[in-house]
Amino acid sequence: MTIEAINFAHKLGTFAEPWSPRVIAEMNDYLPSNIVFKLVKLQGEFVWHSHADTDETFIVLAGTLRMGFRDREVPVHAGEMIVVPRDVEHCPRADGECHVLLVEPRGVVNTGEAGGALTAPNDVWA
Amino acid sequence: MTIEAINFAHKLGTFAEPWSPRVIAEMNDYLPSNIVFKLVKLQGEFVWHSHADTDETFIVLAGTLRMGFRDREVPVHAGEMIVVPRDVEHCPRADGECHVLLVEPRGVVNTGEAGGALTAPNDVWA
Repeated sequence: MTIEAINFAHKLGTFAEPWSPRVIAEMNDYLPSNIVFKLVKLQGEFVWHSHADTDETFIVLAGTLRMGFRDREVPVHAGEMIVVPRDVEHCPRADGECHVLLVEPRGVVNTGEAGGALTAPNDVWA
Repeated sequence: MTIEAINFAHKLGTFAEPWSPRVIAEMNDYLPSNIVFKLVKLQGEFVWHSHADTDETFIVLAGTLRMGFRDREVPVHAGEMIVVPRDVEHCPRADGECHVLLVEPRGVVNTGEAGGALTAPNDVWA
């Protein structure tokens, strides 16, 4: 295994589709508790969904993520992060383009239990 | 639990000591495979060490981390990340001040098996 620096801008340049996460790194892949790092471009509104088995972490690299919850919306700007607990319904949106680094276990489907047209192929590497 | 945006600059403003990580968020704290997010300020040279039980992820927010391995040094600039595999000896250093977001399981000691004067109190929150 090569140990190397992973450049977000370079990886973001390899794909254009919004709402389609790309894996850029993995840690502890030899454990059930592996963690993957995914870059995703957000634009417009996603779908309401939740994840039954895991929290989901969003680190905002550029733009503003507006994380919708059923009772309020939380803006998350570049240089900020938010952890969405498991089972909590959320609907991410972004007015312009927003770049996010996701941190979550391998195998998490982007639309959770909701499914639908915005469901992306899972665990695709950039 | 309040679900909120966590601002890196704000949290970095709450402490000054180099090599002393502060927890700013946790995910899946109800699982053995919990993950914590720690901010740390690097300046100068750390100590050679390794971690037997986990990989360790460094996301560089500002400055340049120079990650020393026994056979080479890998520069990791702001906007880049690196995953150091378990059991791999490494020695981080930074010429100026460097701000890093660490991603690792709860309970990881900063100096690993090496110990010594730079060992920080563990899992202290910002």
